[in-house]
Amino acid sequence: MKARVTIMLKDGVLDPQGEAIRHALGGLGFAGVSGVRQGKVIELDLAASDAEAARAEVARMCEGLLANTVIEKYAVEIV
Amino acid sequence: MKARVTIMLKDGVLDPQGEAIRHALGGLGFAGVSGVRQGKVIELDLAASDAEAARAEVARMCEGLLANTVIEKYAVEIV
Repeated sequence: MKARVTIMLKDGVLDPQGEAIRHALGGLGFAGVSGVRQGKVIELDLAASDAEAARAEVARMCEGLLANTVIEKYAVEIV
Repeated sequence: MKARVTIMLKDGVLDPQGEAIRHALGGLGFAGVSGVRQGKVIELDLAASDAEAARAEVARMCEGLLANTVIEKYAVEIV
């Protein structure tokens, strides 16, 4: 089973990397990009066969290692 | 309109960051994680109102700046 975790900075947390991308896109002539946020995506190959159990385990991984929940939010998808 | 770009290393390209995560998860007691790949996700706020035009423009951004298409693949979603 595969799980995909998307980790983004929480709304309101400054994202200098996203801001740099926005600025670079403007410099390349892409007008009309009003905001950019960059995050991480982590794809996991899991041995678990039960989707709900897998989702709960991946959430524990996020809380314990993958995300800094003080400033980041995460979403888990089973794919 | 919002677009989400997911950028992953192509299959076969070594992903040391993913490998480090897999190793760390094993060390924390999460057994059964057989593979980890890490990528980037970029969320863009666009002024465009036509979804197909927006998708094409974001693809041009990926080719020109966001992804290194030699080693990375990207997927564009309009959300």
